[in-house]
Amino acid sequence: MTDTATLDAPAAAADAATRAAASWLAAFGAALEKRDIASAVALFDEDCYWRDLVSFTWNIKTAEGKPAIRELLDATLAATRPSAWALDGPAADAGGVTEAWFTFETAVARGRGLLRLKGDKCWTLLTTMTELKGFEEAKGGTRPKGVEHGALAQRQSWLERRQQEEAELGTKTQPYVLIVGGGQGGIGLGARLRRLGVPTLIVEKNERPGDSWRKRYKSLCLHDPVWYDHMPYLPFPEHWPVFSPKDKIGDWLEMYTKVMELNYWGQTTCKSAKYDEATQEWTVELERAGKPLTLRPKQLVLATGMSAVPNIPKFAGADTFKGEQHHSSQHPGPDAYRGKKCVVIGSNNSAHDICAALWENGADVTMVQRTSTHIAKSDTLMDLALGGLYSEDAVKNGIDHHKADLIFASVPYKIMHTFHIPVYEEMKKRDADLYGRLEKAGFMLDFGEDGSGLFMKYLRRGSGYYIDVGASELVADGKIKLKSGVNVERINANSISFSDGSELPADLIVYATGYGSMNGWAAQLISKEVADKVGKCWGLGSGTTKDPGPWEGELRNMWKPTQQEALWFHGGNLHQSRHYSQFLSLQLKARMEGLPTPVHGMQAVHHLG
Amino acid sequence: MTDTATLDAPAAAADAATRAAASWLAAFGAALEKRDIASAVALFDEDCYWRDLVSFTWNIKTAEGKPAIRELLDATLAATRPSAWALDGPAADAGGVTEAWFTFETAVARGRGLLRLKGDKCWTLLTTMTELKGFEEAKGGTRPKGVEHGALAQRQSWLERRQQEEAELGTKTQPYVLIVGGGQGGIGLGARLRRLGVPTLIVEKNERPGDSWRKRYKSLCLHDPVWYDHMPYLPFPEHWPVFSPKDKIGDWLEMYTKVMELNYWGQTTCKSAKYDEATQEWTVELERAGKPLTLRPKQLVLATGMSAVPNIPKFAGADTFKGEQHHSSQHPGPDAYRGKKCVVIGSNNSAHDICAALWENGADVTMVQRTSTHIAKSDTLMDLALGGLYSEDAVKNGIDHHKADLIFASVPYKIMHTFHIPVYEEMKKRDADLYGRLEKAGFMLDFGEDGSGLFMKYLRRGSGYYIDVGASELVADGKIKLKSGVNVERINANSISFSDGSELPADLIVYATGYGSMNGWAAQLISKEVADKVGKCWGLGSGTTKDPGPWEGELRNMWKPTQQEALWFHGGNLHQSRHYSQFLSLQLKARMEGLPTPVHGMQAVHHLG
Repeated sequence: MTDTATLDAPAAAADAATRAAASWLAAFGAALEKRDIASAVALFDEDCYWRDLVSFTWNIKTAEGKPAIRELLDATLAATRPSAWALDGPAADAGGVTEAWFTFETAVARGRGLLRLKGDKCWTLLTTMTELKGFEEAKGGTRPKGVEHGALAQRQSWLERRQQEEAELGTKTQPYVLIVGGGQGGIGLGARLRRLGVPTLIVEKNERPGDSWRKRYKSLCLHDPVWYDHMPYLPFPEHWPVFSPKDKIGDWLEMYTKVMELNYWGQTTCKSAKYDEATQEWTVELERAGKPLTLRPKQLVLATGMSAVPNIPKFAGADTFKGEQHHSSQHPGPDAYRGKKCVVIGSNNSAHDICAALWENGADVTMVQRTSTHIAKSDTLMDLALGGLYSEDAVKNGIDHHKADLIFASVPYKIMHTFHIPVYEEMKKRDADLYGRLEKAGFMLDFGEDGSGLFMKYLRRGSGYYIDVGASELVADGKIKLKSGVNVERINANSISFSDGSELPADLIVYATGYGSMNGWAAQLISKEVADKVGKCWGLGSGTTKDPGPWEGELRNMWKPTQQEALWFHGGNLHQSRHYSQFLSLQLKARMEGLPTPVHGMQAVHHLG
Repeated sequence: MTDTATLDAPAAAADAATRAAASWLAAFGAALEKRDIASAVALFDEDCYWRDLVSFTWNIKTAEGKPAIRELLDATLAATRPSAWALDGPAADAGGVTEAWFTFETAVARGRGLLRLKGDKCWTLLTTMTELKGFEEAKGGTRPKGVEHGALAQRQSWLERRQQEEAELGTKTQPYVLIVGGGQGGIGLGARLRRLGVPTLIVEKNERPGDSWRKRYKSLCLHDPVWYDHMPYLPFPEHWPVFSPKDKIGDWLEMYTKVMELNYWGQTTCKSAKYDEATQEWTVELERAGKPLTLRPKQLVLATGMSAVPNIPKFAGADTFKGEQHHSSQHPGPDAYRGKKCVVIGSNNSAHDICAALWENGADVTMVQRTSTHIAKSDTLMDLALGGLYSEDAVKNGIDHHKADLIFASVPYKIMHTFHIPVYEEMKKRDADLYGRLEKAGFMLDFGEDGSGLFMKYLRRGSGYYIDVGASELVADGKIKLKSGVNVERINANSISFSDGSELPADLIVYATGYGSMNGWAAQLISKEVADKVGKCWGLGSGTTKDPGPWEGELRNMWKPTQQEALWFHGGNLHQSRHYSQFLSLQLKARMEGLPTPVHGMQAVHHLG
């Protein structure tokens, strides 16, 4: 306690940061109040980004630079009528950047945001919609009572009401929203819509919720840690394993569907869907447990996932192969292949997992690597990349997943890679030994075209990496044999011929070759015309491999209005599904309630799929 | 901000309270360290209570007064070796009483407690065991990883391990603990034992977890609010209804059992159980889905509930009745009784609920009240009695259910009624109008023999009250007809004759006449000798109706060692099951690990049942 000045320095910096943030927010609020767009724009730095999740734009949109921000305000300010801007807690000084949480309101909603100032100008601004006024979710003190006190002739019990709802939905009553796909994405979105009172039905081809996990290869565990994976409303308990085994997450999803009272039809496949512009209604033909059925929802959400339409390369001679061949999504696990010659085409997550499980069960395994792969050791990834936001330490520092999601969302995609590059530089150093041994074994490595690593690859192309939980050592040791830098020339009756002239005997071929764009689902279900009108899903337009430009600034078509009225795409990993289902559910609720939802910044379509 | 002195007074009082508590705790710790029992006892007020939950006594025990505290320390101090007494947060000044949370350790465990000082002397002390050293539950940073990174020949998946465990339990392997009864009590205890790594099997006569709720009368909702009802580890989400409908809580329990990975056998009845002193093992004969089976657990927990052995009064002529008659536990709900003459014998919770549901469905209903009943309006009860500890406001004030449970547990039973009497005085005033109208309708009211109301009645006798959610208005209005202050003389073919000479026609008789003592289960399952050796369960020995003295100071036989080695009783409402399962699970874990568990203050048996 001898050097008070030094001890108080962080406190003084925080005070100054709070004053700076409060002053900026007051000036911004005042300018918007006066509809003085010029003054509002003048509060931004030349290098500036405003990311809005639904609250101003009824879209998911990043305005990059002052002209775009001016455009955003020109288009949205009059209708949005923002007000009540207020800091939410003290600001922080983070290496010369002031960071501050705030709340605000619009004409129809309440919002939360995160502001970053460089000096007294705004560098990044995040605005998000948290709830619609008058349509707040009942919770805490406003939760339902559960029983109606008093005496009511002909009272219906909770069970009777649920049974009636289930019996009538799809026949006497129509869902407002039909969600096609009952994996974690559809289930989480369904839970949010339930809480918002939007009549919703989830249809799923498998029998039970969770089956889309249960049916995958038996060694599969989530590659992301538990802090990243919570579903909305009902977080995992604190003993839940870091990496959920697939059957355990399956059970959780089944339980979640039940206790959240979701309307969920298993064993149901969608045959076709057609939108009638006149009635503003979809006609969806389904088959439920073998029986045909027509539904007429107002909104159609494809939550069939990024990993839904398998990509199987067409190799000459594949039909002449006498062994077993299947896509990774159909792979049952290693039990039947002990002592067999197994070839896995591909070198991303599934390829590595499947190779390792086959090796562990005594198969002879070769991985065919056709292009370079980014390898990130799971522990290193957790430590360097996720730890600050999604970890036990983060929770101890007051950053739960709600806060982490917003911090994550506040970094504009345009500059996200600059945050990631140093992380992967560090990873390269820390795991240099493994990388060296992999290269020695002939494995082709990369860290993304600009060195920005795993998550940018995921956002740009949804592929190109393996989160190493052990298989890389097997590759480095030669226990998983490697055939690298070659292409498959032809498949023969009992072998594969490669572009380098070599031939490999095979009893089993697994195509761990990934999945097509989600608008492939729209093509299958609706029509090629609609799929083309909507265009490619996912990717940012970064101009890197599998993510052609022009720059889009947001993931294409995800969780936001598309070029097809009343058609929506929902998906992503558990973190994204959890967070963005909030914004998709608010967009759907607003439409159901007939609120005006003028969309700003609808993207043009540059790629078909 | 003009009167700084006044504004700072509470802060100054809190500082003084903290200093007083710290000083007391330091002196207490030092005295115990030196094994100076006289000095330790001198730190207590003449009016003093020390309630210990397992940490010193390996029992659930309240020492009342200095001699009892001296006795407790004489018996336990040497083996317990307590240390590391430390305040946990600042103390509070509550109307002249200093309240302080603290932590401590013993030779084998960590603990938490709550201290109340009057002046500088201790008035009430609560010590509780939170975890056994070396046997801590894995959670947060120590949670399991879920996947074993690296390559392991012959790796078993999570599902394979679970399936193997389920297949072998009861045949190849024996449970250490067998829990008979798979309602919320057995399930919650099972979850705690699972987390502690104690091999446990729960057996339940119904098919699925939750069925014991589902099978009850259809209008049933929990009478306690959600904040009071959380299960261990996995609290209800914040939209969960205040009063859970029975089928909804049934679904929750079923899903809880699944995601907590409990070993749970439905459709299983226990036929007999016998303890072998030599092998220190039970031999339990069961029937699982019709097939006989023998289990050999080391510990046997009866979690069959307070509401398990129906009490059916033997009325003359009951066998001649031509209508339908059943105990309330068998009542299916009102649907079959529209327009029928229904008589409900009894005037407690179930009687009121059943009468109201019958009336709502158009039956002609008469309630037969044989003795007086305590009526507490649900809203008033929540507001006056529970609100401070279990409510949304409490949560906002930082009192979650973990903290509330400890605060609740810190009030010694000996003086608990003095805390409750003023609450019910207030209730009497607030709801005077209803009480007046009920009395006018002939309803016999009471507030407990000493005016201490509902919860004391629950603890003393487990009966004698109705939490009013609407039926009392029907009674006051005469919609539910009342036959009060009479006894049943005889049951005839189509009517009931009463002690006042009147006769009432009846198509249905419901015996809402409560349940017997839990040791009735021990008599049925083990033997009358063991049931008599163990004696009556529940009740405090208050000397009030149905709770004969002498004073015991704790609930008889609940969650603590009984006179029968390796036989335990678990039960109570959701709050009690949640909290006391912690202490029962720690007692069982310690025995499994072979830790010494010398029990202090085992109660003598005064009543057979």
